[in-house]
Amino acid sequence: MRTEDMILVSVDDHVVEPPDMFLEHVPAKWLDKAPKSVKKPDGTDVWVYEGNEIPNIGLNAVAGRPPEEYNIEPTRYEEIRPGCYDVDERVRDMDRNGVLGSMCFPSFVQFCGQLFARSADKKAALVLLQAYNDWHVDSWCGAHPDRFIPLAIPPLWDPQLMADEVRRMAAKGCHAVTFSEDPAKLGWPHIFGDHWDPFFAACEDEGTIICLHIGSSSTILGLAPGAPIDVLITMTPLNAMQAATDLLWSPVLRKFKGLQFALSEGSIGWLPYWLERIDYVYQQHHFWTHQDFGDRLPSQVAKDHFTFCFISDGAGIEQRDRIGPEQITWECDYPHSDSTWPQSPEALYRQLAGLSDPEIDQITHQNAMRIFGYDPFSLRPRESCTVGALRGLPQ
Amino acid sequence: MRTEDMILVSVDDHVVEPPDMFLEHVPAKWLDKAPKSVKKPDGTDVWVYEGNEIPNIGLNAVAGRPPEEYNIEPTRYEEIRPGCYDVDERVRDMDRNGVLGSMCFPSFVQFCGQLFARSADKKAALVLLQAYNDWHVDSWCGAHPDRFIPLAIPPLWDPQLMADEVRRMAAKGCHAVTFSEDPAKLGWPHIFGDHWDPFFAACEDEGTIICLHIGSSSTILGLAPGAPIDVLITMTPLNAMQAATDLLWSPVLRKFKGLQFALSEGSIGWLPYWLERIDYVYQQHHFWTHQDFGDRLPSQVAKDHFTFCFISDGAGIEQRDRIGPEQITWECDYPHSDSTWPQSPEALYRQLAGLSDPEIDQITHQNAMRIFGYDPFSLRPRESCTVGALRGLPQ
Repeated sequence: MRTEDMILVSVDDHVVEPPDMFLEHVPAKWLDKAPKSVKKPDGTDVWVYEGNEIPNIGLNAVAGRPPEEYNIEPTRYEEIRPGCYDVDERVRDMDRNGVLGSMCFPSFVQFCGQLFARSADKKAALVLLQAYNDWHVDSWCGAHPDRFIPLAIPPLWDPQLMADEVRRMAAKGCHAVTFSEDPAKLGWPHIFGDHWDPFFAACEDEGTIICLHIGSSSTILGLAPGAPIDVLITMTPLNAMQAATDLLWSPVLRKFKGLQFALSEGSIGWLPYWLERIDYVYQQHHFWTHQDFGDRLPSQVAKDHFTFCFISDGAGIEQRDRIGPEQITWECDYPHSDSTWPQSPEALYRQLAGLSDPEIDQITHQNAMRIFGYDPFSLRPRESCTVGALRGLPQ
Repeated sequence: MRTEDMILVSVDDHVVEPPDMFLEHVPAKWLDKAPKSVKKPDGTDVWVYEGNEIPNIGLNAVAGRPPEEYNIEPTRYEEIRPGCYDVDERVRDMDRNGVLGSMCFPSFVQFCGQLFARSADKKAALVLLQAYNDWHVDSWCGAHPDRFIPLAIPPLWDPQLMADEVRRMAAKGCHAVTFSEDPAKLGWPHIFGDHWDPFFAACEDEGTIICLHIGSSSTILGLAPGAPIDVLITMTPLNAMQAATDLLWSPVLRKFKGLQFALSEGSIGWLPYWLERIDYVYQQHHFWTHQDFGDRLPSQVAKDHFTFCFISDGAGIEQRDRIGPEQITWECDYPHSDSTWPQSPEALYRQLAGLSDPEIDQITHQNAMRIFGYDPFSLRPRESCTVGALRGLPQ
């Protein structure tokens, strides 16, 4: 297989919400409650919601800028690639990068809709959150259904409403939902009790996968006073290890045996260590900690419930057989600063050197298609889906 | 090489301090200030210092107990193996486990002497800390100089006093000192400024290696309200990743180019991921974060300054060439609950299957001897140092 023969599905990208996103989807009587995109006197674009300003952060949208120009200052729509917020331009940027399919996480409403969960007016917040999801599924993904995996945000403040929204979205064909890697850090109950059971039950029933993006606890491991930002960037994927560890030893996976979690932007290179560690912890300590996985080892439980993704992770690829090659998916992270856009195929191909063609197919797209129920080949010819074919389109 | 041919040096074990430890080493006028070992009415042994009780914790001293009997209740000397606190018995337990050499971390004074750093009377605390170090070097290690690597605790409250103590201990032949993986979590300044420079400079001058034991920040990653203790046990080695990350991006390694750190009980399986990640972070972000390592990559800087150890870590062993085989040491962790005592040789040998004899020698003892300046072969015949020879002694 050559670089141009790969078919790429990215399970973690980001949409910078366009200014007009709520107009079509919020009923007229609620429109004055909706977040408004406002241009400030200095030219900066911010969202205003319930009287608070929410800036766009530059590192959210640096695709196509040379690293020398990365910065962490607020920015404006005109300074970022239209592909960040315009879906037709996004698809062109995906074509340029040879990426067939993409699942996009939210930006200003935060990874699991924390913005709405902090609302004073929860009645309005539910309407707006549903409008957000309708926009995401109908307008963003719906504009190019062969190119996107839809992803819903949940009304975190009420697990029964979360369950209802999971079911409503599933009926619209959306079988992925974001959740917090640690809701306790957001001020909600932790996952070690039964508070979230209605949500988990709905996801299990509907075959909806729960995506835990690093940073979705609004906290980052390693963010200490005085620490250079490089500490944060280095450590942040480890939020996924924490989230997986919490879930593994919680009652959740034993209660909901069909539940699936995707650890988004968590990387994979730490998994061989972690899978071995959880088995060691179990075998060495379960007599007094009273954990009981029946006839499975914790590493098997993890493989039964978790899938993982990476941007660039040669150590993880090398040890793919320890991780389980069917658990590994790839992400582009467009338009964030860790992304390899527009050279993702080249960067990825270098890391996959030495793998067999079937292994490359698993990691580049087959796993993602199976895990997220994404079936582009039913919507377009398979031969139009490769890196080479997409890059060959007029751009 | 057979199991019995290995020579084992453990760079991380623990001493449960014996009740009489201060008697010989504290000048008479300070003796009433020294911590006292007190037996409570319920039979529990505690230390009393400045009016506070410090219990011994069972998991600190479970060697030889079946896992079914591990518990986290306070305990008493009679319930633990004499090898925890009696140095002659310790050596016998090392013989039983075929372990030639051992470096022992403190217990009740905490990993880097936090107990003394919290003292109200800092003048007394310095005397007592020095007595502690004298006991450790002269009485504990000194009873069997061929069997121990001495390790000092520093007076954390004053970097100049720390430097003085490093020099005093170096003059006694002790070239290892414990420090906190994150002094800011103990209420002291963080490592990103110049507060600790006198201490670091003394260590660099004296060729004294700084040992950062997981938990030496008195905090643990992953210890969330409601979380089962298994979460803590799983995540705790990642404290070492955090500490290494902090140091790497701090000015410390660039200021003190000869400084060496040992990451104690941090495991090694996460290193291939981490070494790759820090290079990626550097190459992707240094333009705006302004990190500058000159002509080295961060992974090389890490290898120049850090050494690592593991108890059981097949994933790390498998990827030893990514880590640097000369950076890897082994630990027994006697008498803690993660230890494989008294079957450490068997457990370790299984993990080293497939390695060449020179690689096994590096990992089992040569690296530790080089890194810690430990030279047992000058004190006893080399053929008396193997697992088989030690286990063959009367026990």
